[in-house]
Amino acid sequence: MAKNMKVALLLDFYGDLLTEKQRNSLDFYYNDDLSLGEIAANLGISRQGVRDNIKRAEAVLFQMEDKLGLAEKFSEIRQRLVSVRKAVDIIDQKNMRVYRSNEINESIKQILKELDRLDKLNE
Amino acid sequence: MAKNMKVALLLDFYGDLLTEKQRNSLDFYYNDDLSLGEIAANLGISRQGVRDNIKRAEAVLFQMEDKLGLAEKFSEIRQRLVSVRKAVDIIDQKNMRVYRSNEINESIKQILKELDRLDKLNE
Repeated sequence: MAKNMKVALLLDFYGDLLTEKQRNSLDFYYNDDLSLGEIAANLGISRQGVRDNIKRAEAVLFQMEDKLGLAEKFSEIRQRLVSVRKAVDIIDQKNMRVYRSNEINESIKQILKELDRLDKLNE
Repeated sequence: MAKNMKVALLLDFYGDLLTEKQRNSLDFYYNDDLSLGEIAANLGISRQGVRDNIKRAEAVLFQMEDKLGLAEKFSEIRQRLVSVRKAVDIIDQKNMRVYRSNEINESIKQILKELDRLDKLNE
């Protein structure tokens, strides 16, 4: 059974839509890197049961991403926020070195505060 | 049957998870403001069938928001982007009136371009 590392990401977005056994199986498998046998022992089900849980859960996650596309959307948001932060840094450097405007400095601080909170939402 | 206008918003986020009849029923009801009788005629089902579709579809939407919380998350993203834009405008005004730095101007343009694209993702 090949591991698709996109699954760990999708699990963050859509994990709450899975059953508890499905979610736990994927979590052990992808985030804790346990073997099917170890997961079976942990959950008190058969090795084949774990394998079925993982396959079914992966299918749900990919279907959800196909319909809602959130992982992709949030990935784009993250990239654009990185770009905003770089441009703000350039303004900040220029202002600190040359103009020393308090008004610009306050605005930069406000932007950085919002960017920090947006990053948290995106985690 | 009371209209909950939050439904129209949730429909944008999770509509693809509904059946076609459910989605169409909600769309006619909330976005086009048709009566149950008009929707029934459009979809070729009974008035009671429309009512059932709407109730079931609304339940799915609220359940999804309860589990994934995307409408709330995107609403917060939107608010924070408005705040970023206001702070950028202040820097822009100050730069245009006083410093006329080309470097700051270019960075502001870059930020505004990213903000426009983020707004589009958020629509």
